[in-house]
Amino acid sequence: MTEPWRDPLLPASVRVADLLSRMTLEEKAGQLAGFWALPSDPGAPVAPMEDDSGEPAPGLDDIAGHGLGQLTRVYGTAPITAEAGMERLASLQRQVTEAGRFGIPAIAHEECLTGFMTFGATVFPGPLAWGASFDPGLVRRMAGAIGAGMRRVGVHQGLAPVLDVVRDYRWGRTEECIGEDPYLVGAIGTAYVQGLEGAGIVATLKHFAGYSASRGGRNMAPVSSGPRELADVLVEPFVRALREGGARSVMNSYTDVDGVPVAAHEGLLTGLLRDELGFGGVVVADYYSVSFLESRHGVAGSRGAAGALALTAGIDVELPTARCYGEPLTALVRSGDVPEELVDRAAERVLLQKAELGLLDPDWEPVKPEPVDLDPPENRALARLLAERSTVLLANDGILPLRPCRVAVSGPYADDPHSFLGCYSFPNHLALPGAPGLEIPTLGEALTAAGFTVTAEDPEVNVLVLGDRAGMFGRGTSGEGCDAETLDLPGDQAALASAVLDSGVPTVLVLVSGRPYALGSLADRAAAVVQAFFPGEEGGTALARIISGAAEPSGRLPVSIPRQVGGQPGTYLHSRLGGRTDWSSVDPTPLFPFGHGLSWTSFTCSDLSVDPVAPTDGAVSVAVTVRNVGEVAGTEVVQLYLSDPEASVVRPERWLAGFGRVELRPGEAARVTFSVHADRTSFTGVDLRRRVEPGEIGVAVGRSSGDLPLRGSFTLSGPVRHPGADRVLSVPVEIVPVP
Amino acid sequence: MTEPWRDPLLPASVRVADLLSRMTLEEKAGQLAGFWALPSDPGAPVAPMEDDSGEPAPGLDDIAGHGLGQLTRVYGTAPITAEAGMERLASLQRQVTEAGRFGIPAIAHEECLTGFMTFGATVFPGPLAWGASFDPGLVRRMAGAIGAGMRRVGVHQGLAPVLDVVRDYRWGRTEECIGEDPYLVGAIGTAYVQGLEGAGIVATLKHFAGYSASRGGRNMAPVSSGPRELADVLVEPFVRALREGGARSVMNSYTDVDGVPVAAHEGLLTGLLRDELGFGGVVVADYYSVSFLESRHGVAGSRGAAGALALTAGIDVELPTARCYGEPLTALVRSGDVPEELVDRAAERVLLQKAELGLLDPDWEPVKPEPVDLDPPENRALARLLAERSTVLLANDGILPLRPCRVAVSGPYADDPHSFLGCYSFPNHLALPGAPGLEIPTLGEALTAAGFTVTAEDPEVNVLVLGDRAGMFGRGTSGEGCDAETLDLPGDQAALASAVLDSGVPTVLVLVSGRPYALGSLADRAAAVVQAFFPGEEGGTALARIISGAAEPSGRLPVSIPRQVGGQPGTYLHSRLGGRTDWSSVDPTPLFPFGHGLSWTSFTCSDLSVDPVAPTDGAVSVAVTVRNVGEVAGTEVVQLYLSDPEASVVRPERWLAGFGRVELRPGEAARVTFSVHADRTSFTGVDLRRRVEPGEIGVAVGRSSGDLPLRGSFTLSGPVRHPGADRVLSVPVEIVPVP
Repeated sequence: MTEPWRDPLLPASVRVADLLSRMTLEEKAGQLAGFWALPSDPGAPVAPMEDDSGEPAPGLDDIAGHGLGQLTRVYGTAPITAEAGMERLASLQRQVTEAGRFGIPAIAHEECLTGFMTFGATVFPGPLAWGASFDPGLVRRMAGAIGAGMRRVGVHQGLAPVLDVVRDYRWGRTEECIGEDPYLVGAIGTAYVQGLEGAGIVATLKHFAGYSASRGGRNMAPVSSGPRELADVLVEPFVRALREGGARSVMNSYTDVDGVPVAAHEGLLTGLLRDELGFGGVVVADYYSVSFLESRHGVAGSRGAAGALALTAGIDVELPTARCYGEPLTALVRSGDVPEELVDRAAERVLLQKAELGLLDPDWEPVKPEPVDLDPPENRALARLLAERSTVLLANDGILPLRPCRVAVSGPYADDPHSFLGCYSFPNHLALPGAPGLEIPTLGEALTAAGFTVTAEDPEVNVLVLGDRAGMFGRGTSGEGCDAETLDLPGDQAALASAVLDSGVPTVLVLVSGRPYALGSLADRAAAVVQAFFPGEEGGTALARIISGAAEPSGRLPVSIPRQVGGQPGTYLHSRLGGRTDWSSVDPTPLFPFGHGLSWTSFTCSDLSVDPVAPTDGAVSVAVTVRNVGEVAGTEVVQLYLSDPEASVVRPERWLAGFGRVELRPGEAARVTFSVHADRTSFTGVDLRRRVEPGEIGVAVGRSSGDLPLRGSFTLSGPVRHPGADRVLSVPVEIVPVP
Repeated sequence: MTEPWRDPLLPASVRVADLLSRMTLEEKAGQLAGFWALPSDPGAPVAPMEDDSGEPAPGLDDIAGHGLGQLTRVYGTAPITAEAGMERLASLQRQVTEAGRFGIPAIAHEECLTGFMTFGATVFPGPLAWGASFDPGLVRRMAGAIGAGMRRVGVHQGLAPVLDVVRDYRWGRTEECIGEDPYLVGAIGTAYVQGLEGAGIVATLKHFAGYSASRGGRNMAPVSSGPRELADVLVEPFVRALREGGARSVMNSYTDVDGVPVAAHEGLLTGLLRDELGFGGVVVADYYSVSFLESRHGVAGSRGAAGALALTAGIDVELPTARCYGEPLTALVRSGDVPEELVDRAAERVLLQKAELGLLDPDWEPVKPEPVDLDPPENRALARLLAERSTVLLANDGILPLRPCRVAVSGPYADDPHSFLGCYSFPNHLALPGAPGLEIPTLGEALTAAGFTVTAEDPEVNVLVLGDRAGMFGRGTSGEGCDAETLDLPGDQAALASAVLDSGVPTVLVLVSGRPYALGSLADRAAAVVQAFFPGEEGGTALARIISGAAEPSGRLPVSIPRQVGGQPGTYLHSRLGGRTDWSSVDPTPLFPFGHGLSWTSFTCSDLSVDPVAPTDGAVSVAVTVRNVGEVAGTEVVQLYLSDPEASVVRPERWLAGFGRVELRPGEAARVTFSVHADRTSFTGVDLRRRVEPGEIGVAVGRSSGDLPLRGSFTLSGPVRHPGADRVLSVPVEIVPVP
C-alpha cells in the first residue's frame, strides 16, 4: 500500500502530516537547508558572497544526507547553457533524492529580477522601468514570459520581485525597486507576482522589510524607521502582493530595523507576516543573513544560536547554503534549548510547498535536458514594448522626434550595450564557448538601423548617453553594493555633458541609469532629455524608435529627478514640513516630479467630479475627462492623488491613489473613473492601529505629482474605523470613451 | 490677614493650591501664555519667525488681561543696552502685574546658548566647543558666569542647553549641539545645567526629543527614528541633565517623530518625561510649535484644537506668544471638549516655578535699571580658556607651534571677527549708537599682538582660515535653517584651499566652523590642521596663542571629521554593519575619528587593568596609566570605550563610557581609574524595556575612538536586569599621580 504522503489524491495537509510523522529531527531539518553548488571554475565572473567565516563552503554530501530543502542558482551562478543547466540540475536532484530516505527532490530557485538570470535568457527592462510604465498588464505579461522559461527548465522558485519602496536614491539597489510610492510598487509588484505565479513559479517577495531605508543609502546599513513608517510605507506593497498576487514565498531584509535584525525579528516575520497578514508560504533567508546574526549583527554567539534566532523569528529555509540550520541547530533541539515544534513548523511549510509543486509525487522526474531558446522573438518584442512604454521624456524643446540626420552618439557607455542591463543579469549575456550570447544593439547601431547617419564629426544633433553601468559590489555605478555618495552624475559625466552642451550643436541627453541623478542645469541646456531605467536588451532599439518617433515615450517617473546632488534621503512622499523650503536652506523640491513625463501630443484634463460624501467604510467615485488635443495619437497616464488636511498623525502632503493609462487618437477623449475606498486613506494611528478617520480628503488629478490642475475633495463621515488585513488595497479604474 | 499664596513661609505647594483655588479659568490659562514684545523698529536685524497665520502679533493688552506666564526675549530680540533692557523689562512687568487680578509677574526668558544673548554680553565658545573640551568643570564655570549676568538683569530662565545628539552633520543646528555621543552630551550638558541653575537661572533642556535626526539634515524635516534609537541615543542626555543637573524646564522638538509631532506627543512629553523620568518642572513650547500643529503638521484643524493637543501632550506654556492657548483653548474648556484639569495641571507647574523664583512674594520688585558690564574681564578670561581647551589639533607635521615670522592670513572670513561666533549670538555684537560693541580681535590682529608679522606677500607660512559664517535661515553657512547639502566646504573654499596649498608655502589650515567638513586631501597637503568650533569672542586670541605655542590645543573631536562629502547621515556611533566597507562602495570611515586630537607632547597609555567580573547590578574598575613621554607639559584626554560582542539587539560597535583630562609635565604619569557600573551597558531590548544583559563586555582605552591600543574585557554575571530611571548614568573617574 502507498504511504499516504505519496498519494497525490490526498489533500496536501494530510500528506505532509503523514510525512512529518515519519521523519527524524535531522530529516525535518534537512528540508530547511539550502545548498549552493559553487562553480568549480575559480575564474567564474561572480564570486559568491561570503558568510564571514572564511571556512570552505560545505559540499552537497555534507548537507543533504537527510534530504534537502532548496538548490540554489544552478543556472544563475556562472554562465551555462540551458541544456547543460538542465543536465546539472537533474544530476543534483538525483544526488538529493538518493541521499535522503524519502527521495524528495529540492526546490530549485533562481534570480529573475530583470528576467530569468541565466545565460542567453531575455534581459527585460528593470524594475524602475516597470514602475515607469505604469502598466501592470504589461508587467504581468513579462513576468509570465519569465516564469515560462524558468518552468521549462525545471526551476520552481524565482527570487523576485523586490518590493522595497525607494527611500534614498543613493542606495545601489534603487535600480531593483519599482518606485518611491507604495501604491505604485504594490500595483506593479502584484502584477509581476501574478505573472510569475501564473506560470507556476513561486514568487518571492523581497526584502521584507525595511532594506531600502538604510542609513546614508549604504547597503546593509541600519534602518532607523519607526513602526509607522515601516507599516505605512515599507510594508504596504507586500500586503497587496501577498493578498492579490498570491506570492508563496517571502525573503527577509538584511538590515536591522531600529536595532532588531530582520532575520531575528519575530514581530515582523511572524507577528505581522503570519498572524496579521495570514501568510502561509515559506520564508527564505536572504543569502547568509542567518550567519550574519552572529558575524555582523552581533545578536548571536554561535551558529546554532543564530539559527535558533532565525527559526524562532520565522525564517523557514536558510540560503544559500545551510551553515546555522542543520547540525548547529539540531544540536540545540536535542539539548532542549530550541523546541522541536519550531523545526516542525518550518518543515511543514516547506513540505506543503513541495506537495503543491508535485515534488512529493511518485511520478516526479527531473526535466529532460534539451536545447531551449530562452530569448525567443516574442520575449524580445515584449522587452522592446516595455522599454518603450517605460522611457520617460523629461523635456523637449521640439527637437524630438528627430528625422533621420547626422547624429553623434557619445557618452562613457554609448558603445557598451551591457549598460542597458540591470545588475541582476550578469550571467545572461556573458560569452560562452560555442553558444551565441544575447544580441544587444547599441543605441548607435539602432539609430543606424533606423536610418540615421551616426557620425563622430560635424553632427547635426548630439545624442549624449549618460548614466550607469550596473554591477555588484563596486564593479559598477549602480547595483547591489554600488551605492552613491551623492546624486551627482557618476565620474566626470557632468563635466563631459557641459562640454558637449557648450558645443552649440543641439543635444539630446539620454539617461540610462539605475537611479535618478541630479541634472542641475544640464536639463535646461539640452534640447531634449530622455530618461530610461536600465531598459534591457532591447533598450537601444527602443530608444532609437523613440528618438525617431517610431514609438512614443509613454513612461512616467516612478522616482523624482532631484534638483540637488545632496540633501538625501527624501522622496515625493514627504509631509508638508518635509517639502518646505522656508525653514531650511536646502531645497528639497525636485527638478522633475514623481509621475512626470511628456508625450508627442498634448492632453487636457477636465470635468472633475467627486462624490461629495462617503462613510468611513465606503467608497467614492472620482471621474475626470482626458482629451488628446494634439495632432498625433498618444498615451496619457492620468494620476489621482489624495491628501488629508487634518489627521491625527502627520500624513504625506499627497499620495498616489490611482492611475490609468489612456491611449487616445487626436481629438479623442475618455472618461476615467476611479473608485476610491475609504481604506485608501487609512494610516497607522498614534496607538499603532490602522485607522480610517472621518473628515475631509483632498482630491487632485493631473499629469504628475507636480501638475495637478484639477482639485476637489470629499468627506468621510461616520466613526473612526480600524480596517484589518482584509482592507481594500486597490483603486479600480474604468476608462470609457466619450465624445 | 495675608492670603496663604502670598506667604513666603508656607510651602510652595500650599501656596499654589491656594492660588489656583482663587483663579478663574482665564487666569489659570493666562499663566500658560507667553508674550513677545516685538521690536518697534522694522529694521531690526532679526525678524521674528512667523507662525504662518499672516496675522499681526497680538499686543500685551490682548494677552495679559488675566495675567501672563512668560515674557519672551526682552533683551535678545534686537540690540539693547543692559540698562535700557532693564527699564524695558521693568515696564513690561509692571504692565503684567497691573493687568492681572493677582499682580503676579511673568517669568522672563532669554536665549543663552553661547552666552547671554544680548548686546554687549560675552560670547563664549559654542556647544561643539564645549564638547571638544571634554571638560565639564570648565563648562560649569562658564554657565555659572552666563547665569550670573542674566540674573543680574532680572532674567529668570535661559533657553539652553541643546542636548540633541548630533546625527547628521549637514543639519545647520549641529553647531548648537555638544557632540555625537550621548554620554559626552550628557556629561557636558549636565555641567552646563549645573552652572546655570547654580546661578539661579532656570535651565531649559532642548529639544526634547528627536530634532537632530531630521531627514536629510534639513531643519524641521521629519524624524524617522524608532523607539530604540530615540531612547538609547536621543533621549539619554536629557535623563542625566534632569537627574544630575536638576534642570527645571524642557522645550519640545519641532519635528514629528515617526509621524507624531513632538508638540502633540503625549508618550514623550508625559509618559516618558513625567511618568518615567519624574520631571516636575515646566515644559515650554519651542517658538510657534503649538501653532505649527495646525499650520505645518496638519494634526489639528484649528488653533484651539492645536492648543488642546499640546496641552494634553504636556506642553505647559505656549511660546513665544500665546496664539492657541488663551481664548481658543479656554473656549474648548468651556464647551467641555478639553478637561479643565489639564489647564490646572499646567498652571500648577508654572506657579510652583514662580513660587520658587520668588515671583509670588509680596516684596517682589523688578530689577532697578543701571549700567551693567555683561562682558567683564573674568568672562573674557574664561571664554579664552575654553576656546583654547576646545581647539583640536587635527594634524601637525611639526610646523606648530610657530615661532614669530611673516604669515599671510587669508580665507573668506579671515577679516570678519563675527565668524568666531555661533548663530545664537546675533544681538551681542551689533552696533548700537553710543554704546561700544564687543571687542573681537581677528586672527590677524591676534597674531600681530603675539609678535607675528602679518603680511599679504612673501609669507614664510600661510595661515588659511576656512569654515563657516553663522547665521539664521539662509543668512549664513551654519546655524538654524542653514543646512548643508553635502559636507563639502562652503562655496569655493575647497578650490581656494587647493590654490593656497599649491603655492608651495607651508600652510596651516585653520577651520572655524559649526560642523565638521570633509577635508578630502586638503589635510594631507597642509602642514598642520587646526579645528575650532565657533570659539567665541576670544577665538582669535586663543587661536593665535595656540599657533604660537603660548597655549596648548587640548580639545578632542566631539564629532568625526568625515572623509567624503556625501554618504550622510552617519556618526561614529554606528553598528558593525554601519561601519563596514565591504558591502557598500561608500566608505563611511572618518578622516579623523571621534575623540581625536594631537598635543604639543606625546603620551603613552599602558598597564590596563580591568576587574574581570561584576554582577549585572554592580560595577567594575578599569584603570590605565598615562604618561607624558614628550618634552613639554601637556594634557591628555584618556578615553574609555565599551563594546558588547553579543547582545539581544544590535549595539554600536563601541561607545564612549568615560573620559578624563589629565595634565602632565614631561615624564609625569597618572593612574586613571574609571568606575563602570553595569548600567552603562544597558540598552532598550526587543520588548522596549531597558535591560542589562549578562555576558562579556569589551573594554578599550586610548586617545580616540580610532586609537585604542589597550583592550580587555569583563564579564557581567547574573540574571538580566531591568534598570529604571534611577539607573547609574555617569562613570566616575579618579586621577592619581604615579611615579
